[in-house]
This record gives sequence, structure tokens and C-alpha cells, in this order.
Amino acid sequence: MRLFFLLLLCSACAMAQEKPVYTDARNFQFIGKGLPTDPVYVRLDTVQTRPMTQAVKYLSTHSAGIAVLFQTNSPYIRARWQLAKGLFYANITPIAHSGLDLYCLNKGRWQWCGVGRPGDKDTLNEGPLVSDMDTAMKQFLLYLPIYNQVTSLEIGVAPGASISRVEKPAVDTTRRVVIYGSSILQGASASRAGMAYPAILQRRTGWEFINLGYSGNGKMEFPVAELLATMPAKVFVLDCIPNPSAEEIRERAYPFIKHLLTKRPEVPVLLVETAFREHGYFDLKVGKVVKEKNDVIRDVYTKLKSEGFKQLYYLPATGLIGHDHEATIDGTHLTDLGFMRQAEVMLPLLEKLMKKSAPAK
Amino acid sequence: MRLFFLLLLCSACAMAQEKPVYTDARNFQFIGKGLPTDPVYVRLDTVQTRPMTQAVKYLSTHSAGIAVLFQTNSPYIRARWQLAKGLFYANITPIAHSGLDLYCLNKGRWQWCGVGRPGDKDTLNEGPLVSDMDTAMKQFLLYLPIYNQVTSLEIGVAPGASISRVEKPAVDTTRRVVIYGSSILQGASASRAGMAYPAILQRRTGWEFINLGYSGNGKMEFPVAELLATMPAKVFVLDCIPNPSAEEIRERAYPFIKHLLTKRPEVPVLLVETAFREHGYFDLKVGKVVKEKNDVIRDVYTKLKSEGFKQLYYLPATGLIGHDHEATIDGTHLTDLGFMRQAEVMLPLLEKLMKKSAPAK
Repeated sequence: MRLFFLLLLCSACAMAQEKPVYTDARNFQFIGKGLPTDPVYVRLDTVQTRPMTQAVKYLSTHSAGIAVLFQTNSPYIRARWQLAKGLFYANITPIAHSGLDLYCLNKGRWQWCGVGRPGDKDTLNEGPLVSDMDTAMKQFLLYLPIYNQVTSLEIGVAPGASISRVEKPAVDTTRRVVIYGSSILQGASASRAGMAYPAILQRRTGWEFINLGYSGNGKMEFPVAELLATMPAKVFVLDCIPNPSAEEIRERAYPFIKHLLTKRPEVPVLLVETAFREHGYFDLKVGKVVKEKNDVIRDVYTKLKSEGFKQLYYLPATGLIGHDHEATIDGTHLTDLGFMRQAEVMLPLLEKLMKKSAPAK
Repeated sequence: MRLFFLLLLCSACAMAQEKPVYTDARNFQFIGKGLPTDPVYVRLDTVQTRPMTQAVKYLSTHSAGIAVLFQTNSPYIRARWQLAKGLFYANITPIAHSGLDLYCLNKGRWQWCGVGRPGDKDTLNEGPLVSDMDTAMKQFLLYLPIYNQVTSLEIGVAPGASISRVEKPAVDTTRRVVIYGSSILQGASASRAGMAYPAILQRRTGWEFINLGYSGNGKMEFPVAELLATMPAKVFVLDCIPNPSAEEIRERAYPFIKHLLTKRPEVPVLLVETAFREHGYFDLKVGKVVKEKNDVIRDVYTKLKSEGFKQLYYLPATGLIGHDHEATIDGTHLTDLGFMRQAEVMLPLLEKLMKKSAPAK
């Protein structure tokens, strides 16, 4: 009897001390990338961003919208990830800006199952994503940090467990939606990476979404339009009214959008107004600026439509984030509540555009 | 002409350099406090927590659910607040754990209008809450940090503007709901203080809500029941199943709840199951624990009902935070999406209980 308990104890100790086996994530498939890059963890690499502003170059290193697909039968999954630097944002959780967000394919649907928590001391993080699962083979989708740069990522599983590339990924990469925009698009202020609206839509539709949100810098510079026009896409979404001034929109929006429409006549382009800033109901200056920007982009849309661009569509901001004024953390940046509302408004519209662009096989 | 521009410039400089006039918040009315305390910024003071655990003593210093009411005609509002210490939580935004959250009464409804952003370097913070408003007299509600201790708070307005106690507060402090529970109740992981579910319900109903959420420590120790029984309340809510083990619930729930029911027979008591942990669908151990805890509390409820306590009510967790598995940041702690869902489920039930407890005047 004593021996039995001793054996039990040893076995418990062994489990507690068991070292996971780590695999470099670069062995698996990445989604959410507009074009291939080197290194794989950035959204655009230095060759692609050469003609762009310093800010866009820098923000392109953030891994917003990038996710890795893998399958394993391990009872637990851990991660070890190195970040470029420590961060503090008053309006974003560390789990969102520097952490990981894991989903498991359950009966054909992506279901949330765990997060990787970054620490505040070190830029090398290691920790559990999910534990104590059954050991059936499962497909996983792991979103990378939305506001930090990942320099390495390894996935840890139990010794003896299998981990590999997914054979039949539940993401249809032929149905790609490429979205260009601001900090809101990049994911501020989702609670975790998978709650930025493109990520929600990705899981709901099974399509691939490319997040080209540039915090404070989605300003419609022409070289961005030139690069967008080279990306494989079935639908383009331009959610880039938050950052440029009304004057910048007046100058840049017409050539930017026209370039995309002309170079890619087969791809529907959805133009999205900026949601009204919630503090703009009290801050009269802010309220005026938002209204003016939407007025200007509506004019550009009308002009392009009058020129015959039938594949251009328009989404007014009314109702985009609800009517209770509670969908943001700071008046500008959407919380999970705001992102869920925006995703629900956009979903039927994107389904319609995808049907035009890529009819069912 | 030159003189005119010089004068314009000087006036612009003067505005930029204008020093706000600060008033100590203790001059105004505070809501969200179960009992009066000294100092006013804590939820329970050292006299009230004397028989409680060290953890409850410490967490009672957090200002979760406490808000200050004031009226002003200033075009801007600033705040200066001193915190007990700097914090890092992977799963909470700094704005929620250490910041401020401002609402303005607009046509009889509380509408969000600004946040106070804490810095990462210093525990003394100063900054704008809202700017460039019209100068009509308005009523404001400012929530304090949910996971930090405030040691001083001052409200800044424009020189010459009026700021004072509200004459007719849009919060009915005779209709008080006192809620006891865990970190979720305390507000993890709302994006800002006003998105914890009691705060949402407060603005929706116009009643006063007392937040006695104790992160990791809402464990139903008997002295807590004794203190609760002394608090003015029209409804009690016990949302305290997340923290105690099934064994602790088995031991403590019956005497805890019975004490409250017996001492305060006039007050309806709503018992809330703990929402299923979202990682519990994969983590078999977690899933089992949550199910067991809800089974135990349901038995306690059934026993007390069979003893004739008619004022005891029960809210099962099914549907409490939706069915899409997206309402938490980490499986346990609700985001604004989760809190909004829980508030919407609880609202009609609380309205029913309030009608029993405090019929319309």
C-alpha cells in the first residue's frame, strides 16, 4: 500500500516536472499575411515598406492579425515567445498588445480556448495556453500580439505527443479580405488579439483576413495603395478614415482609391466611414472634425461612383458600433463589445461582396 | 493688424497655459459605498474589516464601484489623483485598474464622456477627462479605479467656472443593490470602471449599486455575512461562487446565506451561479470543478427554499454571458462584452425584485 502511494507521488512529481517539447512555429502554416515576408512574424518587411513613412515601417513589424495553424493531440499546449520590447498602453491589456490568443476547431467552428500572458519584467515569455485536455487530435489557431513585434515563437507539447502542420486547415485562404486602416483596425482596444473585428470575422466566415491597421498612421499615402494593389484579395476594405485629417482625405483618398479600383477591377472595394467619437458628443471640436471627415469621404465615394466604378461600396458609420455610447474604452478605440458590433454589421455585407467576387465552388 | 494677431496669439497662449482650478473631491457626494468609511475612497475601512482575512482587508482599499457626483459648467474637466501603487495586470487595462471613468447626464440618461489615463511611471496622475464642451451646467458621475487604492482625488475646472455638489442627483440612493462576489464582480476585466456589470446596471436603472467584489477572495467567510446584514439595501445579490472551492461552498454557503435571510427578512436575496469557465470546455479539470460548485450551491438554494425562505431567488448561469464563448479575456474574467450580456440578463430580474422590495412611490 505504501509502495503504491509512493509510486503515485513519484508519478505526480514527474508530471509536474515534465518538460514540454518545443517546436519552432515557423514549421507550421501562417495566415493573415498580405504577402510573404522575411521574417515571417512581421506584416510587411523592409523591402515592401521601402517607399513608406517611418511610422508605417515601424508598425509593419507588429504582428496584428497574424496567426499560426497547427494540429496536436497533446493534453496541454504551452508557448515560448520573444518580444522586441516591453510596452505600456493605458488603453490596451498586455494580453492583447503582447500576448497570444488560442482557438480550437470544435465541430467545424473555431472556439476560444486559452491565452498566453506576457509578463512585465522580461521580453521572453513562457507559459501555458491550455491544459488538461483529452488527447484527440485537434486543430488550433494561435493569434500573435497585436501591438508588439514577435522575434521568435515556439509551441510546447507533452513529450510523445504529436504536433504538425494542419492537413486540412479550416481557413479558406482563397477567400481573402484585405483591410487597410487605423489603430482601431489594428486591434485597439480588443481584450485579446482574436477580438479585433477582422479576427472575429475570420472565425465566423472561415475566410482569411489580412489586418493592415496602422496605429495613428493609416493615412492613405499613395505607396500604400500601390502595395495593396499587388496583394491577392477577393475583397478590399478601406477603414482608413480615422487617421488622416479632412484635408488629407480631400487630397489623398481619390487617387488612392482610384488606383486600387483601376488596377484591380475584379475586386469589390468597401469604403467604411469612421465611427463617431463617443467623446465627440460633448467635445464640440472632436465632433466637428469627425463629421467633416465623413462628409469628405462620402463626396469622394460619390465622385468615383459617378465615374462608373461599380465595384465600389460604402458603409456609413451609423449604427456601426451601436447606439448606447458604451462600445469604446476612450471614445475612439473599440472594446470587444464594439468590435463584436462592428463585425456583426459588416458580416452580411462582406458575404454579399464575397459572393460577387468568388462565387461558391 | 499686427497688434490684432499679437493679441490673438497671446490669448491662445493664455488658454494653453491656463491653470485649472482644483477642488478636493471629498467636497462632493460619493455613491457606491455599503457603509460610510474613513477614508472615503475605500470600500470598507479597517474597523469594518477587523474580523476578516488579510486579503479582504487589503482588497477593501480598492475603490471598485465607488463614484463621485458633481455638477459644473466648465468647458473642460481634468483630474489629479494619487494612487497607492503602480500595478501590472496582464488581463486588465491600466485605465480600468488605475484610471477614472466619466459620465454626463444627458436628457435624463448617463452617457459616457471621458476617461482619466494613468501613467506607468508615477502614482500621481493628472490629465484631461473631457474638453471643449459648451458651458451649460451639467451633472457628472466619475467612477474611481477598480483595482487600485486612491489616496486623493481632485477635480479641475476652468478658472471662473462653477463646480459644486449636485442638487438633484440622478442616482436614487434609496434603491440600493448590494452585491458580494469575486474578481469578476470587482470588474476584471472591464475596459474601464463603468463597464463592470453593477456600474452598467446603475446607469441603466438610476439606482445605487454597491460593489463588494473581492478578487480571488469572495469566499463567503461568516464575518462578511454579518457585515452585509448591517448594510442598507433593497436587494442583495450573492455572486460569490467563482472563488470558494466546492468544499468551502458546502461548508459556508448555508450559514452565510441563512444569516442574511434571517437578519434581513424584508430584503430579496438573488443567488447567482458562476458562469462556466470558457477554457473549461477543453480543460477537463476546470470544467469539472465549475460544474461541481454550481451543483453544490443549487443544493443549498433548494434546502433554504424548503425551509420557507421565500425572499431567496436563483439565477442559473446558462446564457449569463452568451453562447459564443467570446465574452471573457481569459476564460474567467468578463470583458465589456460579457459584462453587458450579464447586465442585460440581470436587469429584468432585479427590476422584479426591486418592485417587491421598494414599490413605486
